[in-house]
Formats: sequence, structure tokens, C-alpha cells
Amino acid sequence: MTAPPHGARTPGAPEELPNTQQGMRRRNLSRVLRTVATDGPLSRASVASRIGLTRAAVSTLVDELIRSGLLEELGPERPGRVGRPCSALAVSSRGPAGIGAEVGVDHLAVCAMDLRGEVRARVRRQAANRGRPPEAVLKELASLVRQVGRDAERDGLRPAGLSVAVPGLVARGTHTVVSAPNLDWHGVDVDAHLPTGLSLTVDNEANFGALAELWLGDVPEDFLHVSAEIGIGAAVVVDGRLLHGSRGFAGELGHVPVHPEGPACACGGRGCLEQYAGEEAVLRKAGLAAGPRRVALLAERAAEGDEAVRRALYGAGAALGIALTGAVNLLDPQAVVLGGALSRLAPWLLPSLARELGDRTTGPGCDVTVSTVGSDGPLLGAAQSVVRAVLDDPAGVTGPDRGGLAALDR
Amino acid sequence: MTAPPHGARTPGAPEELPNTQQGMRRRNLSRVLRTVATDGPLSRASVASRIGLTRAAVSTLVDELIRSGLLEELGPERPGRVGRPCSALAVSSRGPAGIGAEVGVDHLAVCAMDLRGEVRARVRRQAANRGRPPEAVLKELASLVRQVGRDAERDGLRPAGLSVAVPGLVARGTHTVVSAPNLDWHGVDVDAHLPTGLSLTVDNEANFGALAELWLGDVPEDFLHVSAEIGIGAAVVVDGRLLHGSRGFAGELGHVPVHPEGPACACGGRGCLEQYAGEEAVLRKAGLAAGPRRVALLAERAAEGDEAVRRALYGAGAALGIALTGAVNLLDPQAVVLGGALSRLAPWLLPSLARELGDRTTGPGCDVTVSTVGSDGPLLGAAQSVVRAVLDDPAGVTGPDRGGLAALDR
Repeated sequence: MTAPPHGARTPGAPEELPNTQQGMRRRNLSRVLRTVATDGPLSRASVASRIGLTRAAVSTLVDELIRSGLLEELGPERPGRVGRPCSALAVSSRGPAGIGAEVGVDHLAVCAMDLRGEVRARVRRQAANRGRPPEAVLKELASLVRQVGRDAERDGLRPAGLSVAVPGLVARGTHTVVSAPNLDWHGVDVDAHLPTGLSLTVDNEANFGALAELWLGDVPEDFLHVSAEIGIGAAVVVDGRLLHGSRGFAGELGHVPVHPEGPACACGGRGCLEQYAGEEAVLRKAGLAAGPRRVALLAERAAEGDEAVRRALYGAGAALGIALTGAVNLLDPQAVVLGGALSRLAPWLLPSLARELGDRTTGPGCDVTVSTVGSDGPLLGAAQSVVRAVLDDPAGVTGPDRGGLAALDR
Repeated sequence: MTAPPHGARTPGAPEELPNTQQGMRRRNLSRVLRTVATDGPLSRASVASRIGLTRAAVSTLVDELIRSGLLEELGPERPGRVGRPCSALAVSSRGPAGIGAEVGVDHLAVCAMDLRGEVRARVRRQAANRGRPPEAVLKELASLVRQVGRDAERDGLRPAGLSVAVPGLVARGTHTVVSAPNLDWHGVDVDAHLPTGLSLTVDNEANFGALAELWLGDVPEDFLHVSAEIGIGAAVVVDGRLLHGSRGFAGELGHVPVHPEGPACACGGRGCLEQYAGEEAVLRKAGLAAGPRRVALLAERAAEGDEAVRRALYGAGAALGIALTGAVNLLDPQAVVLGGALSRLAPWLLPSLARELGDRTTGPGCDVTVSTVGSDGPLLGAAQSVVRAVLDDPAGVTGPDRGGLAALDR
């Protein structure tokens, strides 16, 4: 694997720290911080017993995390048994914040999330981005990032990095959108047009959506996340880690051949899943014109009992089931999670989808569930990926060049 | 992910060592040993500069590895420049050995591999294993394991573990073959019938075959390994690690739907890849009866220009291309590697396979190459997986309970 260029991070993949005393200290700082983030508030003694280090070693690490503003003490309390009073530790509500941003076909959104996972500032603006020059889109996004960053700082937070979700393919370990057909972007370097001064990560919206399911939703460690807006996107999570693929293009479920002799697809193939379950195909089969609020319209009509719409969704579900059979056979995930527009349409997609998958796979098969995170997944996953990077290497944010007001005002 | 039960290891996945001084020492022992194994012979100073530790720290680690019989000194030599004479280090030819074993439909094989990756003892025996009681098959295998173990010990080696490749699905982290249809095995606990006293790992032959490609062949870190004997097997390697799937069943390419309305398959699906590219299907289309040396026969006839055989292989290649399009779209590997019987038939499969894959995938696509390891892949991969486990945690083999003569003679 080629190493990513300096400054480009792969979301969901903790950096490997060197195997030295210094590296061990950094790893142990992370273990303490993650333990408190996951299970806190906790006493020093509880942290020590959970991670198998001595109480003295944990106290030294905790003191460093408090000095860096990543942990805070909730004040002394006397437990219901004998012994010294102890102070419970919690992750700071005034420490570093992750800034997440989303470029949609018809909107822009930015939020700031604290180390506890709470969204502390957010903004969303309608914008007709399809065909608009990328420079203009990203200039507007940069101003929203600055606005949210200032709101977060007024609230005592310190922006620690920016992750941007885009509806397209991003070359692994770069800031370059190779192709985002629904925006008409090709080879757009996001870094060049988004000068916020924050450490930047760019990735596909389906990937950030899957990370949001993993971190904020109710999913197992191995799952396939399938979502749809205009195209069909998917992301593969294995052992709690996102699978990016060698070029960063993994998860292209929309162009899996479903009926190999089927209609030609813009990708060059024939009978791809998008020809049966993509938004345009479903609208056409349902006898509806393309237009705004398309998914809402499909859901309303299906709920009202419109037979043509129900038939179109039934066919889309069957095509999804065939494509997912191949994916489940190859990857053996614990679950398939339907997100994005698919979660709204799930009642009418699921019967045929589950039937195909059940008939075509052996053994106990694979659960099919509907996202609990909702349509904010990509935005929240982007912000959370910055938070995770801090939790994975807290020493990395305490250096001189890591975000903060000065960076934002550059 | 559920932790594997005690004693069952997942091949190709280094165990995570605890993050303590002791864990750091063990990791650094491994780094020294792996550096010499990969790049040796090397001086202590060269090892130190490669792994970024001080020369003094490396010397302490090297001394421990020499005492444990894992490294050896090749004797003093004076380099062509000023300075003290130094002694080059090499991985020991008399240290621990990995024992690999393979249960085939018509053969059994066992080999012993030293830490340098050299096969030092091996045995192969024809055996009609299809339908034979698993106890009898494994009893015969155990006697071959003891024979190879004794040969290795006479040669100064110390068996450090046993890995067994089987043509079936193995439940992740267990020794249980859930299903091996071509052996007629269902729910066979290999451990219960293979009492060699050695630490045991059991996995699918395609998985060990893929590890052999990774470790001994000429493949990138991200690839899809496709092989065939009677069924079609595949294995997915991502960032140099085998993807097992949640239950251990990943890589079931043979049951990816190629023509969803096609012929019924024993798996319960319709139009699976095996219905077009499995051995039986190809023989039937070629007008040949099933029987021994079937693949050799196909290759001979195709080479002689037999039109029916060539047409059958062309069709099989096209079906492989359609199934691989879905796999490449989902996983974005750097390469697809054809192994097992497919490597012998590659000249007649590749044209249609590459055409389908090329027409149906966008961008630079994905290289399709033929295995350089050959049909011994699963056996060599099994033995090498034990060797890798020693290289990944050399401290683990120096304890009292780790293999050796006493274990073999139990």
C-alpha cells in the first residue's frame, strides 16, 4: 500500500504509533482517554483495573490528559464504602472538537462535535451544487466551516480537524475527488479550495455514513452499509474498520452486475444494480418524473397503496437482494444495514430483498436492518472521525500546530 | 467480534500483544527477528538503524533471540571500511519449524518449514478421502504429521505448531469444519481426531493458498485469490491481511449469482458461478465425463485445439469475469490472482474473463495474474502460517509448553 501523502489521513484507520517508550506512552494516553470516553465517568482506580496498568501509571497519564484539557474531574465524592474520597473523571466538554462537513447535491452542512460525541454547533444551507463550479461550492463551504468553528470556540471548544463527506470517489490517502458524477466534479482537489487551516480529511459520504452507524448506531463490528440518494452507495466495515480498497474505491455496489445482459449503464457495464434500484430507474418504473423530494414522493405514494410504485420498489428490492447475495457470500458480514433514502423506503423494499437473499444464501444468512442514525449519518460520521483521531492519539492534538483559533483565522 | 476460544488461532492475524513493558519487549523481539528474516543477513547496527532502536537495545534483544535458538551468528567478518569486525545475523536453520498439512479429496500431504521459509521435510500420499470416515482420514494424517515431525527433529528443528488446510468452511476461531461437501464432512472437530500435541490451526484451503501467494508469491498487499479444484474457492486479502468474515466464511465466490434466473444450485440459489465455471459444469459443456485427472485432461484437449473444450472454457471465463466484476467493485483490490486448477487453464479462461471485467469496470480496473506458487499453495501457506506466528511473537515459542519432541510423542 502506498503511504498517504503528508497531511492526508484515512478515516477510521488509527495511525500506527512507533514502538518506543514515547510511542507506548502515547498509546497508553489513548487507552485511558478512550476508556473514560466509552465507560466514564470513572475513578482512576476503575480506569487502572480496566486497562491493566498500575494506579500510579494511570494517575500520571490522567494528570497529563487533564493538563491538556482532554479530561476533567467532576469533583470529590465519597463512595459508599471505606477509603479516601475519589474524584470521577469525565471527557472534557471544553476540549478539542471535530468539525464535520458535507457537500450534497442540493445542500451544504457543517457541524462541530465535542469529545463526548455531542453536536455543539451546526449549520445547514440549501444550495444547488450540481454543475456549479467546485471553487464556488467549496468557498461557500469554507465560510460555513469558519462560522461553525467560531461558534464552537465561543462555547469553549477548540477545532482539532475537518472531515468533508462528498458524494463521489476520493483517491485513497488524498484530498482529491476523482469523480462525483452527480456534482459533475472530476479531479477536484478539495484542499486547494478549502483553506481553513485545519487538518483535512476527505472521503466518500457512504464511508462516513458507515462510520456513523458503527460509532453512533446499533450495528455489529462487521457489516455492509447500503445507502442511496441519487446513486447507490455502499461501505464495508470489517472488524470495526472501514475497508477502503487499494485506490479508495471499495463499496461500489451500484455497479455490481445483477442481470448481465440487462440495459447499458453509464459506467460502461450492463445490467448494473443502479439500472434496477437507482432512483431514476425506480421513478421511471413507477411512472413518476424525476424532480425534487423524489424519495419522499415514492414513500408517500407507496404508503397510500399506489400499485405501480409498490411494484417498482418490489423490483428494486429484488435486485438489491441479488446484488447483496454476492456481497454477503464474499464478505460474510454479520449484518446488512440500509441507510439514506433506502431507510425511508425499507417497508416496501425489504420483503423482496430478504426473500432473494434468504433463498440464495445458505446457513443462517445475514441480518438485514434499517439505519438508526438517519440521513445525518455522513455529516456526523465526518465530525466523529476527527473526534476518534483525537481519542486514538491524544498527544497529537497538544502540539503547537494542531488547529485552534489561529488556524481558523488564517 | 467474538474472541476465539483458547488454543484456536486465526491464521494471518497477528495476536495483539499487551501494551506494557513486557508487551513492548515482545513486540521488539518480533521486529528484530522479522527484520533479519526479511532482509538478513544483517549486522546488529543495520538492524538497529532499520527499526529505529538504539544499538544497545537491539543487542539485548538479539542476545535473547540467539539464546532461544531463533537467530544465529554467521561468524566475524571485517567490512571493507574501518571499524571493529562485526558478525552478521541470520535466522536460525535449526530453530522452530512450522508443520503444514493438507486434506485433499484424493490426497493427504504434510510438510515442515523452517524459519527461513525452506521446506525441510515433506510427505504426500494418495488417498480416496471422499466419503471416508473423518476419523480414519485424520488418523492417517496424524501419522504423517508424526513422521514429518520426527524427520524435522532429526534435522535439528523443533515443531512449533500445526496448521491444517481443508476443502471446506471452518467456523472462525475454532477447529470445526462446518461443511466440506466434496469430502462429505459436516461438523467435524479436527482437534478431537488429530491428537498430535501441537498447537493447532484449521482453515479453508483457499485461505491458506492466498496466504502462500502473499508470503511466497509475487502479489500486492490487496488481492482477490481465486482457485478451483472441484468447487470454486476464493480468498480476500486486504492490506496484507486475510479477510475471514464474521463466521469465517468469507470468499464464497462460487455462489455469487451470475445469471439470477439460471440453473438451480445445490446451495439453494440459482445461476451461481459454479453452475458455469465449476469443474462439473465445464466438463459437461465440453462433453467430457467426470473422472480423475479432469483438469489435466481439459488443459490437454484445449491445447490440442478441441473446439468444444475451448468453448466451455471461454464460457467459464466469461462467467468468472461477471462474478469478479461484482467482487472488484466491492473490494477494489490491486489484483485478481488465479490459482489452483485455474492457473493451468488460464490461457483459455483469461481472454473472456478479462473482456468481461474490462468492459464492466470503469477506470484503470484491476490486474488479473496467474499464481506463481502453484498447486502446493495451501500446504505451504499452512506451514508458513506457523512460521509467521513465531516471527510475530518469538517470545511465545520459548515457553515450556510450546511444541517440541515431548509434544509430538504424546
